[in-house]
Amino acid sequence: MKLYETLAADIAASIYSGVLRAGEKLPSVREATAHRGVSASTVFQAYYLLEAQGLVRARDRSGYYVAHGARALPPEADTPSQPTEDAASVTINDLVFEVLESTMRRDVVQLGSAFPSPLLFPHDRLSQSISSATRHLDPLTILDELAPGHTGLRRQIALRYLASGVHVDTDDIVITNGALEALNLCLGVMTQPGDKILIETPTFYAALQALETHHLEAVEVPTHPREGIQLDALEQAIKRHQPKACCLMTTFQNPLGSLMSDEKKQALVELLTRYNIPLIEDDVYNELYFDSHRPALTKRFDNSGIVMHCSSFSKTLAPGYRIGWVVAERYTRAITRRKLTTTLACPIPTQIAIAHYLEKGGYDKHLRHLRKTLQTQQTQFAQAIGHYFPPGTRATRPKGGYFLWVELPLNANALHIHQHALSLGISVAPGPIFSAKQSFQNCLRLNYGHSWDDRTEAAVATLGKLSAMGA
Amino acid sequence: MKLYETLAADIAASIYSGVLRAGEKLPSVREATAHRGVSASTVFQAYYLLEAQGLVRARDRSGYYVAHGARALPPEADTPSQPTEDAASVTINDLVFEVLESTMRRDVVQLGSAFPSPLLFPHDRLSQSISSATRHLDPLTILDELAPGHTGLRRQIALRYLASGVHVDTDDIVITNGALEALNLCLGVMTQPGDKILIETPTFYAALQALETHHLEAVEVPTHPREGIQLDALEQAIKRHQPKACCLMTTFQNPLGSLMSDEKKQALVELLTRYNIPLIEDDVYNELYFDSHRPALTKRFDNSGIVMHCSSFSKTLAPGYRIGWVVAERYTRAITRRKLTTTLACPIPTQIAIAHYLEKGGYDKHLRHLRKTLQTQQTQFAQAIGHYFPPGTRATRPKGGYFLWVELPLNANALHIHQHALSLGISVAPGPIFSAKQSFQNCLRLNYGHSWDDRTEAAVATLGKLSAMGA
Repeated sequence: MKLYETLAADIAASIYSGVLRAGEKLPSVREATAHRGVSASTVFQAYYLLEAQGLVRARDRSGYYVAHGARALPPEADTPSQPTEDAASVTINDLVFEVLESTMRRDVVQLGSAFPSPLLFPHDRLSQSISSATRHLDPLTILDELAPGHTGLRRQIALRYLASGVHVDTDDIVITNGALEALNLCLGVMTQPGDKILIETPTFYAALQALETHHLEAVEVPTHPREGIQLDALEQAIKRHQPKACCLMTTFQNPLGSLMSDEKKQALVELLTRYNIPLIEDDVYNELYFDSHRPALTKRFDNSGIVMHCSSFSKTLAPGYRIGWVVAERYTRAITRRKLTTTLACPIPTQIAIAHYLEKGGYDKHLRHLRKTLQTQQTQFAQAIGHYFPPGTRATRPKGGYFLWVELPLNANALHIHQHALSLGISVAPGPIFSAKQSFQNCLRLNYGHSWDDRTEAAVATLGKLSAMGA
Repeated sequence: MKLYETLAADIAASIYSGVLRAGEKLPSVREATAHRGVSASTVFQAYYLLEAQGLVRARDRSGYYVAHGARALPPEADTPSQPTEDAASVTINDLVFEVLESTMRRDVVQLGSAFPSPLLFPHDRLSQSISSATRHLDPLTILDELAPGHTGLRRQIALRYLASGVHVDTDDIVITNGALEALNLCLGVMTQPGDKILIETPTFYAALQALETHHLEAVEVPTHPREGIQLDALEQAIKRHQPKACCLMTTFQNPLGSLMSDEKKQALVELLTRYNIPLIEDDVYNELYFDSHRPALTKRFDNSGIVMHCSSFSKTLAPGYRIGWVVAERYTRAITRRKLTTTLACPIPTQIAIAHYLEKGGYDKHLRHLRKTLQTQQTQFAQAIGHYFPPGTRATRPKGGYFLWVELPLNANALHIHQHALSLGISVAPGPIFSAKQSFQNCLRLNYGHSWDDRTEAAVATLGKLSAMGA
């Protein structure tokens, strides 16, 4: 973290904790320079950053003030989950689909959606890419590159791994219909009905559905809302259950937003390598980090090819294009063949469009803008939760992604809140859909990937009221 | 069939059987008019049709002659298959993948491919459609239409059903990643591991792979190479095995090219309705008919919603777009939900491109041209088989699609021919990959969907030699 970022974070913490309140004046640049022992330009940079985050506002000739909207954050959620230790078969009830189907309605405020706002993405540039790429397409490409997918796109993806310090062979990448198909292909290749799989709890409901589709049993492992899965509990579960694989999200986990540190990721990979348990990682948010450095990929620590790294462009660039992939290494052939027998291939036009876009450049610039937008929106949502939700509410403070995990007082019933809210035109994702055992009855996942406006604020206020009622 | 078509078919039969030989003169228009009792214009139309099919050639002021390339066809294959009656679990061996993977190589003559030549499709028009449609896309569509898919496209598909005399609700259509995903979704929704499924034999290997993926058992039912599955045997198999569903191709079956008559389709649907067995139909070739009328869809006879009609644009319009669908009716919700949990959605750009293309018109014109091309190529391939293959060879004469099923003398070994041919840069699809029990050791499926040229003729000649050797 740079000096000005540290300074900005300190001031933000004062605002979030309520020490500095809306309307109050920040120290002048001269004062801050003197007290902090930093240069004036560092102070200016920090204040600009805070302004960009919507936390402070400059008034002409008078200095910086805490913005009117700046409110204290709720206390941070920091207790690990405590699942029972037994394995469970998975049955997804209608609830997940109710939530999922509500995200397809424009009349609903999308706090329960798994997707960021489609308005955040460079549609015009992508449209230019798809036009140009399809116009120059050699038709025979259609047959050449059924599976594992378009070579040009796979090379561009390999280049992005390289830029993040990981060498991946183009030939080890299989293009899939989003990370979801990648996850399903991995399970299809590695498991037989009845096998046990280790997962975080809470975990993304799509992972639970994939376990159900493949007739697998889930073993839920305690997970910390900030730091991710607990390694000692993971090792115990491995010893007890002899699982076939581990399905995790180590970076900005859905729904918690937890981030395992680089050191912890390394320890995770070493642990799984020791027991020879493959890690099927759904890692679609790793480009959406708010700190100055990209979190390490688990793949960086993987010397024996146990990490099946699944990702996509659906959350970062092109949600409607359904382009995902898996770095499958020793499983590449098996994954390719399973793809050939289930969906055969991904469409060529969308693959060559993304390849064209990546080649032309501009993705990193788009990502920088997207990260800033999401970070600002996180602050806006978190402050509103602090303001509108009942005392005793806690929330995560993820360093990336676009989900907040909200722990309500224990008497709150997330399922009732979900139903009540939906009848009022607001979707939320209730805690129980993130667990094979329908735990987390008092929790909600809120999506801050849609822009903050009056309608959204009213929706959060309504949720706060419903939560206070226990709904 | 119109009068001129009947006359043309009669003359073609004389050529195919060797009565009329290459270089011989056809009756003059005056003679034919007198002998046949038809008008001169009918004779002209018949001769034009034969010329378009490459069977005859006009010489200035001298009349029509049997074309140099016109050769006798091999005798027609017309013995039904005779599988054993027991059910079998399905294990797909490497052979299918070997064949499939060889179709991705440009250096190989693609007689074993499951795809027609990509050069047969209107890429420029499609590229214009995808450019225009993505340029005008409302980004929020991405979330609205995850599954069951883009409403505009589903409406266009419903309109095509209407044009073929079948009413289908837009809301009963689920867009899929090709017909292959549709087939897999249907099996996923309707079956549990261990269930039995009735199939034709020979059958498309992708159906066998889908049974394997879902841990199902195959019951193979005798099938006639011209007329399709035998209904009496089908009824016996239903009584004996209590299957969960039937997976068939009633129109230009892959690999036989068999076509069930409209009456037989009606009887099939009535039979399955009586026993309440769903029919999962993979019907991707029904637009590729050579006669003047489109064969009836089984859906036309389906009053109780037992037909799950799976189809796609992959074989008729846009092979690289991976747009298929299923008319799921009472299973629509279950199919939609399974789609949401396995691949989530199909890409928006390819869906709106196809919808745009269909709206603008031109599909029917493209299809008329495609059908003529395929029919001409069938004749060219069949004649070459008649010419180069050993005595005792029989072949189907499909009325549509782009596959010929070739029965070699019993001592021929299709697997050896496949391996030997591949080493010479020629792919074929050997009979055993079309059977759960690796039957059809002396059969080959040849694809005539690629243009006829010297390289192809040389490849067919080589296959003829290998077949004569028994390879």
